[in-house]
Amino acid sequence: MNLSAVLRISCPDKPGIVAAVATWVAAVGGNIVHAEQHTDIADAMFFQRVEFTHTGVDSVDALSAGFAPLAAHWEMAFTLDALPWKPRTAILCSKQLHCAADLLSRTTYGDLGLDLVALISNHDDAAPLATSFAMPFHHVAVGDKADARATQESQIGELLQSLDLDLVILARYMLVLPSEIVAPWTGRMINIHHSFLPAFIGANPYRQAHDRGVKVIGATAHYVSDVLDEGPIVAQDVAHISHRDDVAELTRQGRDLETVVLARAVRAHVEHRVLVFGNRTVVFG
Amino acid sequence: MNLSAVLRISCPDKPGIVAAVATWVAAVGGNIVHAEQHTDIADAMFFQRVEFTHTGVDSVDALSAGFAPLAAHWEMAFTLDALPWKPRTAILCSKQLHCAADLLSRTTYGDLGLDLVALISNHDDAAPLATSFAMPFHHVAVGDKADARATQESQIGELLQSLDLDLVILARYMLVLPSEIVAPWTGRMINIHHSFLPAFIGANPYRQAHDRGVKVIGATAHYVSDVLDEGPIVAQDVAHISHRDDVAELTRQGRDLETVVLARAVRAHVEHRVLVFGNRTVVFG
Amino acid sequence: MNLSAVLRISCPDKPGIVAAVATWVAAVGGNIVHAEQHTDIADAMFFQRVEFTHTGVDSVDALSAGFAPLAAHWEMAFTLDALPWKPRTAILCSKQLHCAADLLSRTTYGDLGLDLVALISNHDDAAPLATSFAMPFHHVAVGDKADARATQESQIGELLQSLDLDLVILARYMLVLPSEIVAPWTGRMINIHHSFLPAFIGANPYRQAHDRGVKVIGATAHYVSDVLDEGPIVAQDVAHISHRDDVAELTRQGRDLETVVLARAVRAHVEHRVLVFGNRTVVFG
Amino acid sequence: MNLSAVLRISCPDKPGIVAAVATWVAAVGGNIVHAEQHTDIADAMFFQRVEFTHTGVDSVDALSAGFAPLAAHWEMAFTLDALPWKPRTAILCSKQLHCAADLLSRTTYGDLGLDLVALISNHDDAAPLATSFAMPFHHVAVGDKADARATQESQIGELLQSLDLDLVILARYMLVLPSEIVAPWTGRMINIHHSFLPAFIGANPYRQAHDRGVKVIGATAHYVSDVLDEGPIVAQDVAHISHRDDVAELTRQGRDLETVVLARAVRAHVEHRVLVFGNRTVVFG
Repeated sequence: MNLSAVLRISCPDKPGIVAAVATWVAAVGGNIVHAEQHTDIADAMFFQRVEFTHTGVDSVDALSAGFAPLAAHWEMAFTLDALPWKPRTAILCSKQLHCAADLLSRTTYGDLGLDLVALISNHDDAAPLATSFAMPFHHVAVGDKADARATQESQIGELLQSLDLDLVILARYMLVLPSEIVAPWTGRMINIHHSFLPAFIGANPYRQAHDRGVKVIGATAHYVSDVLDEGPIVAQDVAHISHRDDVAELTRQGRDLETVVLARAVRAHVEHRVLVFGNRTVVFG
Repeated sequence: MNLSAVLRISCPDKPGIVAAVATWVAAVGGNIVHAEQHTDIADAMFFQRVEFTHTGVDSVDALSAGFAPLAAHWEMAFTLDALPWKPRTAILCSKQLHCAADLLSRTTYGDLGLDLVALISNHDDAAPLATSFAMPFHHVAVGDKADARATQESQIGELLQSLDLDLVILARYMLVLPSEIVAPWTGRMINIHHSFLPAFIGANPYRQAHDRGVKVIGATAHYVSDVLDEGPIVAQDVAHISHRDDVAELTRQGRDLETVVLARAVRAHVEHRVLVFGNRTVVFG
Repeated sequence: MNLSAVLRISCPDKPGIVAAVATWVAAVGGNIVHAEQHTDIADAMFFQRVEFTHTGVDSVDALSAGFAPLAAHWEMAFTLDALPWKPRTAILCSKQLHCAADLLSRTTYGDLGLDLVALISNHDDAAPLATSFAMPFHHVAVGDKADARATQESQIGELLQSLDLDLVILARYMLVLPSEIVAPWTGRMINIHHSFLPAFIGANPYRQAHDRGVKVIGATAHYVSDVLDEGPIVAQDVAHISHRDDVAELTRQGRDLETVVLARAVRAHVEHRVLVFGNRTVVFG
Repeated sequence: MNLSAVLRISCPDKPGIVAAVATWVAAVGGNIVHAEQHTDIADAMFFQRVEFTHTGVDSVDALSAGFAPLAAHWEMAFTLDALPWKPRTAILCSKQLHCAADLLSRTTYGDLGLDLVALISNHDDAAPLATSFAMPFHHVAVGDKADARATQESQIGELLQSLDLDLVILARYMLVLPSEIVAPWTGRMINIHHSFLPAFIGANPYRQAHDRGVKVIGATAHYVSDVLDEGPIVAQDVAHISHRDDVAELTRQGRDLETVVLARAVRAHVEHRVLVFGNRTVVFG
């Protein structure tokens, strides 16, 4: 039986790495289906994604263990994962449901391979959406007490931990999560921001875009870091607008961008195409 | 109370039309919110869309009747419709459900103002989707008999007639409808074709695109006419591809295009932004 | 003989403006070829561009004088200009010549209707380019003395004044001009900035873009105001990039963007399509 | 001294190729800077571009000779070329000069590494352009005699042969060249077609696009084959248009597309990024 695996590597650039990796893949009986490498000359770093089929005699864990000495020799950071991958995923949303609805719809009627296990919101507007797609719904409201926000945040944090997740998607979740909630999910929590970052950081980006009079709006999907809107960018796209478009119209047009850009980033993550390097990403094609 | 109406005009171009129309709107107590005109110099034709608010003393029908003498004087074809408009709409689909799911999702969780009354398919794959959105589902299968296809077509035709529809959307409905079924819906039936028409007319356009080695794929939403893939185009968009994308990947990437382009065309239609002239459209901004 | 003129209007929004303007055009024997209006509902402002042909019995100045009472009645700011317009134009550049070369090439071999009268630079690299296109070249270098920069700036200012210009184009001119030089050219000086403003204001935007790890770069053409990179935006466009593109490659790809975006903005200006309102623009289609 | 070389490979897909190639590069003292591979699974073909630096002890010809046994073993077609490459290039044009002017301008004031040796036209309109850039101009007119066209074609063919060229660029050359003129330049003659091929093959594509009422226009750069507009596509791009754009405006907007798409294709060719496979291309990033 033929199985697929993805090896992702980052290490200091040296001659011979490509040959060493390709030789190893051949030695374990693998056949390279796709391979893409990138050398960041300014930083003297080498990055590679190698997708190969193998006989499955060795599990992905065993293959990883087998690769480890080579990785040590070349000072590589690496991951070796199976394909396809169906990560256990929770979606967080607030009142705007287009991104959450799209992810649910793509998973159910399309081809986005998520194992969706929870829809979580600070509002109960999403309950019918969860019902439509037979998805467990968690309403974690912000209460009235003085410490309501902090309480809600720790409830969210505990919920995420308890769900044993591989991936958290912030699908227009409009509350900023504090560092201690975000930290455990580094590289596993994807947010969609409704602007072409780094333009229009923070609240009301379509209002900001309108007031600045730009002719193009955008959306940005990024891994969440502890600085708001500053995490490594995975995908961006833009749309042309004009003076005719008021804030409501920008918001409406922006939804299509947000939906598509978020789905594109999630897909790249699920297919093990993304490598984070500092605050930037390598997204293999 | 302030109501909105949209006046769409096409007529031979002559000096004075804009003044005459604007004067009439003012005379009936209307205030022009948006107006856009287009003069096709080669054909000496004038087109205009005037969106105005009015007090509602006169109904849209009464306003139409009041405008008729002016229209006759200038040899205008015109329509005068209320805004917002929620057309009674049926969606036809086959096995690929992304466009149908998106239209249902936008109507329920977004802002596409359709009065959806039926999901119709030649396959039963769409039944769960209909259930999710509490939508009546009509499975009109092609049977086994010699005249099965003709029978199915007349069932579709009768079903559409019986539903008292304003709009029919072919959301990747993969059977060609014959002229006699299509004819009653001229200008009220929108199809999405999965290529950048007029390239790759007919079946398997992503296969055709792959084999020709193009670097860009597209999708086209058009009113259905009695010649396949030849009706007036309402919206088109494209995406860049590369040699890495096989037919399956083109198909997958194309889905996002099809979904967005179809929704854009439907929205333009619902907002009374489209005028058909010959086999072309004027789509006001 | 038929001549063309363009009337641009901005005023508080009131019912009846469109009728009044159209009636006036008809009264002076004009025939409206294109008209586009925009109502900014949030600001209750009305904007219109009316392009009309007329017999030329009255000059543009006489038509303006004739329109003035109407304008006063409706509290309009307006301009009335002839079409086509060939503005006396100077181009400023530094060491990067792609935008300047493109503007010269479009004017000579294409269809950009500029009356180019000077190429001005703080470096002498552009001298051969000026020679190729038989264009007077002004090298205004920054000298060695303590006040060298201030001296150079006032030389530039005086040169621009002395040339009796309609339009100044900063085609990758890399020195910031002080307020007193810029002020006389409000609405008549167009700059190209090599980023998608407001992202990456200031120096080395491609370096900034690379370091932030964005997936899209852009270029912005704007009227120059006294705050750097803050003037009203006329045109923007973007291109997709990837991790493979280092700063040099971003710079190279950006050149195509800058060239096309600047030419697009200049064309809109020359065709009297732009209205400035606060720090935003209305760019009629 | 470090030199750069590019190895391009196509062969039947088998396990071990990547390792074999990378091992060979390391063995000759090369360091891989970029490498990209593509496996066409449907055709079971493997394609690779490997860019490596080497010490220059061996010339590119010697490196090629050294690689030949490996190539034979794996049934590879391959080329091994030096970088940078400045191909001896002739540009053919007719009356529309924007593409030719752009290529000259990019070569002189930009960074397109061509060794331009001739501007050739069937009209004399391009003479001043050639003069501006100090380029030899060859006016090969179609005469009045019965066999005038055939005579002109063989003059063109002989001229191209006599110039000892590496590359021929048809920069809006509006006469169709017959097979016998084209055949010697297979894979070395690039044409820009002013439509999104395969839509609107043949004459007047902007007229065709207007009459069909499309909402997007395009341009296509392709290697010239003996069937008109059917050669392998190297680059394509598109622009959104609307009903407002008549044929003249499409033509004008199309010029920017044609210019940029042609330059992009020429650059890919000059950087040894293109592999032709059947009637398709692999264009490495």
